[in-house]
Amino acid sequence: MGERNKKVAVVGAGLVGSLHAILLAKKGYDVDVFERRPDLRKAKIIGGRSINLALSNRGLKALRYAGVEEQIQAMCIPMYGRKMHDLQGNLTYQPYGKDGEAIFSISRGGLNQTLMNHADHFDNVRYFFNHRCDDLDLEKNELHFFDTENNQTVVEQYDHIFGTDGAFSAVRNRLMKTPMFNYSQEYLSHGYKELIIPPNADGSHRIDKNCLHIWPRGEFMLIALPNLDGSFTVTLFFPMEGETSFASIQTEEQVMDFFNATFPDAVEVMPTLAKDYFDNPTATLVTVRCNPWNFEDKVMLMGDAAHAIVPFYGQGMNAGFEDCSVFYEMLDNYQDPMTLFEKYSALRAPDGSAIADLALYNYIEMRDLVGDESFLLRKKIERKFSELYPDKWLPLYSQVTFSHTRYSEALANGEKQRKIMDEIMQIPAIEDIWDSPVIMEKILNSTT
Amino acid sequence: MGERNKKVAVVGAGLVGSLHAILLAKKGYDVDVFERRPDLRKAKIIGGRSINLALSNRGLKALRYAGVEEQIQAMCIPMYGRKMHDLQGNLTYQPYGKDGEAIFSISRGGLNQTLMNHADHFDNVRYFFNHRCDDLDLEKNELHFFDTENNQTVVEQYDHIFGTDGAFSAVRNRLMKTPMFNYSQEYLSHGYKELIIPPNADGSHRIDKNCLHIWPRGEFMLIALPNLDGSFTVTLFFPMEGETSFASIQTEEQVMDFFNATFPDAVEVMPTLAKDYFDNPTATLVTVRCNPWNFEDKVMLMGDAAHAIVPFYGQGMNAGFEDCSVFYEMLDNYQDPMTLFEKYSALRAPDGSAIADLALYNYIEMRDLVGDESFLLRKKIERKFSELYPDKWLPLYSQVTFSHTRYSEALANGEKQRKIMDEIMQIPAIEDIWDSPVIMEKILNSTT
Repeated sequence: MGERNKKVAVVGAGLVGSLHAILLAKKGYDVDVFERRPDLRKAKIIGGRSINLALSNRGLKALRYAGVEEQIQAMCIPMYGRKMHDLQGNLTYQPYGKDGEAIFSISRGGLNQTLMNHADHFDNVRYFFNHRCDDLDLEKNELHFFDTENNQTVVEQYDHIFGTDGAFSAVRNRLMKTPMFNYSQEYLSHGYKELIIPPNADGSHRIDKNCLHIWPRGEFMLIALPNLDGSFTVTLFFPMEGETSFASIQTEEQVMDFFNATFPDAVEVMPTLAKDYFDNPTATLVTVRCNPWNFEDKVMLMGDAAHAIVPFYGQGMNAGFEDCSVFYEMLDNYQDPMTLFEKYSALRAPDGSAIADLALYNYIEMRDLVGDESFLLRKKIERKFSELYPDKWLPLYSQVTFSHTRYSEALANGEKQRKIMDEIMQIPAIEDIWDSPVIMEKILNSTT
Repeated sequence: MGERNKKVAVVGAGLVGSLHAILLAKKGYDVDVFERRPDLRKAKIIGGRSINLALSNRGLKALRYAGVEEQIQAMCIPMYGRKMHDLQGNLTYQPYGKDGEAIFSISRGGLNQTLMNHADHFDNVRYFFNHRCDDLDLEKNELHFFDTENNQTVVEQYDHIFGTDGAFSAVRNRLMKTPMFNYSQEYLSHGYKELIIPPNADGSHRIDKNCLHIWPRGEFMLIALPNLDGSFTVTLFFPMEGETSFASIQTEEQVMDFFNATFPDAVEVMPTLAKDYFDNPTATLVTVRCNPWNFEDKVMLMGDAAHAIVPFYGQGMNAGFEDCSVFYEMLDNYQDPMTLFEKYSALRAPDGSAIADLALYNYIEMRDLVGDESFLLRKKIERKFSELYPDKWLPLYSQVTFSHTRYSEALANGEKQRKIMDEIMQIPAIEDIWDSPVIMEKILNSTT
């Protein structure tokens, strides 16, 4: 954006806000970061149990730009594939990518603290905690905060304002009233609750720590991601209402009956299940899309504020971090901030909508399909072909998780691949001849 | 809802709010109506030129319930069909329905005043003007207003609150923060501007007053609806941005060049065109959907607050009035207000979304298709068949405009009809044999 030492505000000091502040600081901007809550490095944040997340290549690239990639990698547990648990406790393993490719389980809190500490090394970054954004004057480009610690109103003017204040963004709420601002929020009928598999007495993990565990049961699903302390954070995805749902399960006995019938091998490693179920909050799952992401060159939405997505592709944080790396890459290409803001929104908003679609689709895949033999065969065929002709076929999961292909392109490529595989799966006795040259030839012809 | 003399609030004293207040008053409720603006019967409302609207059967039914149908009818000009103006000034006429079926042009302001005056006859209706809704406490069911006349805050508690405060509803804005509230707002790339065809010196209309005039030009469209004073309100629908758009036309010369080239016969009757073009505001076109419409039994959204739609089916007001008549009909069927609110939202939200879809579709029909010979032939065939077998085929336009079929059912029926007509239009030389028994027989077989 040409001139340095411009004064910019980042509203929201979560993962995306903290990373964006570092990248802007590196480019020479004076960055004020405002956060509604206290400093999470000093105060115990009240809310749900601290969740862990799956970090992957898109996120890692942005962390590299910020200069913290190695530090963060040391806090990660690699997960090389999915391990599916069936009702009888039988396990099926599906690798995520090629040898060595992995996604990384990391604590949200730990990652956020590391980013904040790194931001503190820059003289041109200042953090303001306990500042609730109450209004945004788009004429003057003024932010109005209420400082909840000192009980006073704070008004500040900025050259540019970045809204990284999450799925229920106050900054976005102001943009909603501007003309031609398209917006949607859509809830799944399912919600989630976090539970725990504690470590063994010796601090080791009770189940294989190097994979993401899934108990797919159609309308219900349990997943588990490893933590460094030997525990797993377990997440139950469950209907909010209905015959078997968060609304219907009301007693510890009902919890145990449901889990024993549905996830018996998980119950064995969850000694505090019944208590955790009632101690921990139930949360909803929302998809937010908007377009444009900017208001003139005054405001830009990034991260969940621009594209809250459901968690089933493990891409929420990665998409948000990629927002920052793409902006960082574009910064030097445009002298005129208005052009930069418009080009960035036009480039990035379709990608935000595409990863939202992909995440919704992956919910179906995770809860229904990963337990399905025909689906697993389909994935095996794809993998085989991809190994033979790596330049002709990168599986959709790999495009999303391991590549830097635009999400919107990955979505379109995935659609083409799905049509080809739909035809392949119709071939009689495909389960016997799936890896034969004739099948590989047929796929090759379809791709060209 | 069983108990009478409950205290209810209606937020927004526009068309839907004023009608709903009357219907609630008739059922015995104590109704407080709050309006942000001054009383439009006393003050000149600042804003765009007062628009006229097309009232049709759904709206008339609700006005009948309110006891004002005859009074309103006297303020209407019936429009029996569409009159299309081509570039050479040639006219094509297409009746809306069967003989005598019409939609009615009426002034928004006049209709609103009549409803307010009628509401004043009820002891149990009170109006509060200059009351801006600032907040809604969903715990206590309290409304927080700022009285802009007396510069004071007003807080009131109600048994039930109805949000009839339009497309940019403050009530809905509060519901947006409740869990599981699905919402979208989507702008067309086209906006609109109102213009005028003044009356002749003797007060008569300059063009045929008993039809809705359309100048369909693909990306551009002009329409005109008659007023009682001999004028027509003309509306230009036009791209907001682009080569030929509201953004590109900046001088009176450009206005006249564009209109002379595009709407030459309209220019002849629009002596103040160039001045009006710059005096009158440019407005945007938004579609709003949400689901549910209620929060428990505390709040219900109705009218544009629940379903703002684009104006191309002439159903915005009619859909809002139907919201009121459906609620009125359901009121006595449910003793428990929670059940009533949930059933009403579940019934009505899909209809709000359906009329939004229909209105978006009709934009394409109005600006592109009504000037198309194949489309006009299709309509003639449908009409012919419908006359022969009225119980087998009611044209979609008639279902929407003249029937009380649910919008969602009309949308589904219309889709079936479209598929049948797509096949009929493929028949060779259909333009020569369109009214032959063999064609009618073929449609008959398709419908059964």
